[in-house]
Parts: sequence; structure tokens; C-alpha cells
Amino acid sequence: MINKLVNKIKQTGAPIVVGLDPMMKFVPEHIQKKAFADFGETLEGAAEAIWQYNKVLIDNIYDSVPAVKPQIAMYEQFGIPGMIAFKKTVDYCKEKDLVVIGDVKRGDIGSTSEAYAVGHLGKVQVGSQSYYGFDEDFATVNPYLGSDGINPFIKVCKEENKGLFILVKTSNPSSGEFQDRVLKDTDKPLYEMVGEQVAKWGEEHMGDTYSYIGAVVGATYPEMGKVLRKVMPKSYILVPGYGAQGGKGADLVHFFNEDGLGAIVNSSRGIIAAYQQEKYASFGAENFGDAARAAVEDMKADIAGALANR
Amino acid sequence: MINKLVNKIKQTGAPIVVGLDPMMKFVPEHIQKKAFADFGETLEGAAEAIWQYNKVLIDNIYDSVPAVKPQIAMYEQFGIPGMIAFKKTVDYCKEKDLVVIGDVKRGDIGSTSEAYAVGHLGKVQVGSQSYYGFDEDFATVNPYLGSDGINPFIKVCKEENKGLFILVKTSNPSSGEFQDRVLKDTDKPLYEMVGEQVAKWGEEHMGDTYSYIGAVVGATYPEMGKVLRKVMPKSYILVPGYGAQGGKGADLVHFFNEDGLGAIVNSSRGIIAAYQQEKYASFGAENFGDAARAAVEDMKADIAGALANR
Repeated sequence: MINKLVNKIKQTGAPIVVGLDPMMKFVPEHIQKKAFADFGETLEGAAEAIWQYNKVLIDNIYDSVPAVKPQIAMYEQFGIPGMIAFKKTVDYCKEKDLVVIGDVKRGDIGSTSEAYAVGHLGKVQVGSQSYYGFDEDFATVNPYLGSDGINPFIKVCKEENKGLFILVKTSNPSSGEFQDRVLKDTDKPLYEMVGEQVAKWGEEHMGDTYSYIGAVVGATYPEMGKVLRKVMPKSYILVPGYGAQGGKGADLVHFFNEDGLGAIVNSSRGIIAAYQQEKYASFGAENFGDAARAAVEDMKADIAGALANR
Repeated sequence: MINKLVNKIKQTGAPIVVGLDPMMKFVPEHIQKKAFADFGETLEGAAEAIWQYNKVLIDNIYDSVPAVKPQIAMYEQFGIPGMIAFKKTVDYCKEKDLVVIGDVKRGDIGSTSEAYAVGHLGKVQVGSQSYYGFDEDFATVNPYLGSDGINPFIKVCKEENKGLFILVKTSNPSSGEFQDRVLKDTDKPLYEMVGEQVAKWGEEHMGDTYSYIGAVVGATYPEMGKVLRKVMPKSYILVPGYGAQGGKGADLVHFFNEDGLGAIVNSSRGIIAAYQQEKYASFGAENFGDAARAAVEDMKADIAGALANR
């Protein structure tokens, strides 16, 4: 799956993943109205609205980006109907041949981590049969519990040719509270130690040029990205924080390797709610899918320009 | 909700939470057979089996323990039908007046953390209406992303009088990989710094005697539990790792305060699969609920004995 991701990034020229984080305030009014008319102002109505919204977005971007990253929290908040919308979204993206990164940030230990891995990336055994629960291609995972939490995920990834992005240095302002603390024995910050461990885990499950085991490093910390790029040379870096969180194209160059690969940059509201920005307002809410497509092209140019000038 | 938990612990004399982690290998054959006969060897069949299994367990333990802790991964692995079984389990436990700790180990940032909080502890807005998604009483949360990840949960907890248990020092063998690293500036391990932060977060949302914001510290690390007990005097400690993971009653005493309160000890397979142990084999698989009830009484006696002898 990492090979597929790398190939699709080369084909599209877009080291971009679109975050499908459908907050209700992003969903155009005409979609909300129709969904509420059909299902009422219920969890089912909300789930229908975000599914219809996603479907239009996917139809507009599937051939210009390699991957999408649905944020499960935005679906889980609507309970069971929300989870059904998540599954429909994942399945539809896969029909469109998009690589699906489930932004689930799960993490537990032993058989519990294995259950998460099986639910999101693998097949669960039921008597003599086996089934995919949600079936994403990659999942984001939290490292706080150590190898006991990660190894069960790697086991399932090996069976299924799937992959992980492990949180190393997150994009938020308070990420330094724990992640930046300097360790006494190495004189290096915790995130660097986690990065070193990601590189080791990555060796266990290599694709052709990159590992199936990647890392999450926020665009908002370009200097740390520069260090982590070298610490984990074979790991793809999933880079959140572009756009709305303040990261710019020029901040991203250090996340890429010399081969122009090694990073995939996420944008969520900057693309899916582009129609709400002044820059794309002329599209109108009815044409939010076209606005999203235009925002993808602009982001592609921003990153390509930054890489050409480095 | 922390007041309710404390009161129920006093009433039952059981500082015990039963982990509802229904792995299929724990579910007695007669329940599996019936579920598969009705729904086939499908995700629906598996979900029906774990729900029927849980129902019998809950009916047998609801009046002898204060709380249950369903581990969502064990349901999530069965996709949508599994999530429905999780919700049915949570709702049924609440009907039986049990305090429900959702072992979800979620954690993200900003609006995403808020979406998780809303989904598991609060109400989500849909047009002019609002709904509970899953509606547990407490949730376990991962602290790796810092205050940006925790504060949105605390906000929802304040609105709903609900609470959290934040991972501090987990029970697994590799938990030390990151959690035990000594920090240069304080000369103390990371878990202690996280514990100090939990104490601070806890001050923001106090119940009568204890905070709504608790911590997870593994029974397998009693010496660290002793330190953390003092670092977070007002935080309830949820203690996993008793029984199957090797923790014994005598290891638990340091997790409690002088008032005999402040800790709640989890046991999962030791109770829910008691019938598979030699000690309770005479009950037979048909009477697994009675075996679970007997195991609760034995655990209660083990902890009470250890506390009396400290």
C-alpha cells in the first residue's frame, strides 16, 4: 500500500492528502436542508448530510490527489449513524481507487491493539468466516504505550500490506508539553526518540523504497521536521497543519527527501470548505466541489513552487 | 459522576470495575451457537454473541460492583454491528445504574478532541436538536498531544458532570519505553510529569472529595503507583493489570489513599471468563454468570484483605 501511495503521488504530482473532516458548519445549507427533510434533525439526518457532502467532494478530487484522510471523530460524534457514514465514505473512496488513511489515532496494548488493527486494517474471524470491519489502507496510531501498542498493528499491516502513521510531533500549540521534553540520558527531546523508534519499527515492514510505517509531524514545526526527516529517512511523513493551522508551502520543504518524496501534506478545511473562503467565494455554496478542486490545484502549485525553490 | 462512583464504591464495598472486553474465545459455546444460528457466521452474529454474553454478565454483577469498563476495541473490530453491540451494552449498564467507563483511549486536538468528547460523553448538535452518541459516564484519554487534546474533553465533562481517566503509567511491559524516560530539567520520569499535569487538570473540575479527572496507572507497577498516589492526591486512579496481567491484591494498597478510597481496580478476563479457570470450572460454561459473580466476591475479599493488612 505504501508502494501504491508513492506511485499515486508521482502520477498526480500531488503529495497531498485531503482531510475528510466534515464538521456540520462546513456542509452547505442545501445539503443539510435536503438531509433533514428526508431524515429529520436526527443523527441519521446529520450522517446523511456529511455523507452527501463527502460524496460530492470525492467525485471532484479523486483524480487529482492520491489519498484522503477521514477523521473518524467527526463521524463518531454522531454515534452509530455517524459510524455508518464513515464506513460508506471509506468504501466509496476505495471504489474511486483513493488511498484511505483512517485518522483514528488508536492505541492500546496487546490483544486490544490487535482488535483495533483488525477492525480498521484487517479481517476479523467469525467462526469459519472472516470480515473487514472498516478496511482503511493506513491508520494513524498513538505511541504513548510503547512497542506493546505498536507491534500488534505492525503484525496486521504485514498480513494485509497496509501501513501506519505513528504520532511523533503533532501540529498543535501544546504538543511540546510532553513531546518536546529533553531526555536526560540522550539530551534529545522525546519526539526525536519516538522518531528513532518509528525508524526501527519501519525496518520491519519495508516497501520498495519507503516503509509501510510512517510518522505524523506537524507542518507548524518545520525545524523539528528537518531533524526528523533525517532520523527516519525511509518513513513517509504525514504532515498536518498546512493552511488553517498556519503552515505554508515554504515550511514544508524540509519534510521532503532529496528525491522529492517522503512527505504527504494534509489539508482539511482549506480544501473541503474552500467555498467559504473569500478566495473561492465566487464558486458559490452550490459548487463547493469545484471550489475544493481549485483549492487542490492551488495547494499543488504552492508545494511544487516551494520544492523547486529549495 | 465522580461523586456517584465514590458513593457506589462505598455502598458495594467494591473498589472494582469489571472490564467488559468480550473476546470471542471467552464467549461460551452455547451463546455463540445460538447467535450464529440466528444471524449466521457474520459480523451481526458475532455482535449478537457478545451482546448476549454481556447481558448475562451484567445481570449477575450489577448489584455487587459500582462500575463496568467496556473496551471499545473489542466491539469496533466487528465494524458497525460491533459498535451497535457496544452501544447496547453501554445503555443496558446505565439502565442497571452501573457507572460506565468507556475504555476508548481517544485523543486528538481542538475541535477533533471535542468531537470525540461529544460523541462519548456529551450531546451533539443537529440543527435545533441535540443527541447523545454513545453516552458513557467516563472515558479513558491519551495525553500525548498535551493540553490541546485534554481541555476539549474537560469542557464537555464540565457541561455533563462526567469524567476522564487519563493514561499516566500503563500496565504493559513496554510502557517504560517512553513513559519512564527521565526528563533532563526535572530529573523525574515522564509519567510523573504527566501525573502532575493530571493533578492540575483535575483542579479544574472537582467533585465533593475527588476530581472528575482521574488517571490510569497499572497494577503491575506498584512502586510507581505509590509515587503517583502522592502526586495526584485528589484524582481517582483506575488500575488495570490485576489478575491476568500479574497484579495481586498486595500490590494494590499503595494506589489507595488513607481514606481507603482513591483507586478502582479493573479486572476483565479474571471475572468475565472466570468459568474458564480451574478455580471456577465447577460452575460449568452454562453458568458463566455465576462464576463471574463468585470471582467478583473473591476479588473483593482479596483487596479488602490487602487494605486491612497494610
